[in-house]
Amino acid sequence: MAKLMEDEVFMAFTTYAVIVVVKMLLMAPLTAFYRITRGAFANEEDVARKPAEERKKLLRSHPDVERVRRCHQNDIETIVPFVLVGLLYALTGPVLSAALLHFRIFAGSRICHTIAYLFSLPQPSRGLSWVIGLLVNFSMSYSVLSTVLYL
Amino acid sequence: MAKLMEDEVFMAFTTYAVIVVVKMLLMAPLTAFYRITRGAFANEEDVARKPAEERKKLLRSHPDVERVRRCHQNDIETIVPFVLVGLLYALTGPVLSAALLHFRIFAGSRICHTIAYLFSLPQPSRGLSWVIGLLVNFSMSYSVLSTVLYL
Amino acid sequence: MAKLMEDEVFMAFTTYAVIVVVKMLLMAPLTAFYRITRGAFANEEDVARKPAEERKKLLRSHPDVERVRRCHQNDIETIVPFVLVGLLYALTGPVLSAALLHFRIFAGSRICHTIAYLFSLPQPSRGLSWVIGLLVNFSMSYSVLSTVLYL
Repeated sequence: MAKLMEDEVFMAFTTYAVIVVVKMLLMAPLTAFYRITRGAFANEEDVARKPAEERKKLLRSHPDVERVRRCHQNDIETIVPFVLVGLLYALTGPVLSAALLHFRIFAGSRICHTIAYLFSLPQPSRGLSWVIGLLVNFSMSYSVLSTVLYL
Repeated sequence: MAKLMEDEVFMAFTTYAVIVVVKMLLMAPLTAFYRITRGAFANEEDVARKPAEERKKLLRSHPDVERVRRCHQNDIETIVPFVLVGLLYALTGPVLSAALLHFRIFAGSRICHTIAYLFSLPQPSRGLSWVIGLLVNFSMSYSVLSTVLYL
Repeated sequence: MAKLMEDEVFMAFTTYAVIVVVKMLLMAPLTAFYRITRGAFANEEDVARKPAEERKKLLRSHPDVERVRRCHQNDIETIVPFVLVGLLYALTGPVLSAALLHFRIFAGSRICHTIAYLFSLPQPSRGLSWVIGLLVNFSMSYSVLSTVLYL
């Protein structure tokens, strides 16, 4: 058991994987924060304690909430594949420097992506950070398939 | 290979991970069930065999379908990170009792969350079970990063 | 480290897992392609360089974009659990032929599902390929739980 966690590449993968997953997890309480401060809820039971006349008004969507949710969804579409493919990539025994390069670029690109999304920075900041994250995923996938191909 | 599955912490992780993933998978047929019984479809080819005048009416959203979908989405946002971080957490060799505590609380919280969501139970039942699941994820993430940090 | 990747079942899992994850990743640039060609964007900063009178018209949803997004979402709901459960399944040391059968049927079913979804093929082509993928997931989950049960 301990042997995997003594491998430097696997330790690096573990560190960056947990960092980006924690970043992704933080989008959930952020959505809750925007739902409460903007007064935009999705479920009737969430507004049950409000006065009856206010309830219907609070069951709405709000641009700020939708923005965080789109950012969260993009995380799911990009970060989850990173952890899945990255785990297999780390197990194929890549060179440490190449692996670190992949993990660091990915983590950096996703932090930039979140900032660009939440603060509505002008394009192509968000588009570019999204593409870089995708390219890291494709590069790791290619590396895994060229090492291990068992169809 | 067999060695990993002889480790008690890893066996416990495997058991609880599969249980919560199966729970998450069951939301998909449940959505299909609600789509069919409530007559609320998303694709034109899904209603192609219905009489022409009914088709347009069936391409709609329905509160019950949307509720299951939100519950499913919340599972994806919470259960997938649990399995990803939990796998790495199990590999860091935690004490069995601490690991079991994390896994059991998480599995329990997600079952409560699903019941609270699908039956529209009064808040804070759903909110609380959601927060507990998140806290387990953050606790495991912290534990992994404090054991293995290789930036 | 290298030992895991010398196991034939694990190599087969790695190959098929990366193939279906890459398929899932490709839905993201496909969504971007449809957003640009159909002129249907979600964020104000994405249309900032267009003439002012066009901007509001471009912030809309389009059936083709929504179709790719639903297909992508279905991938997330089905392929991510496949990789999570499949990894644990591969670690329980199943017979190679049984494992390959699971992995191949799953990969085939998801490719059929994507084609059926994107080209709006008549039902039950999409429904059937979706159910087959789900059944593979349930079969692997059952196999894992019947080998390793540590509650």
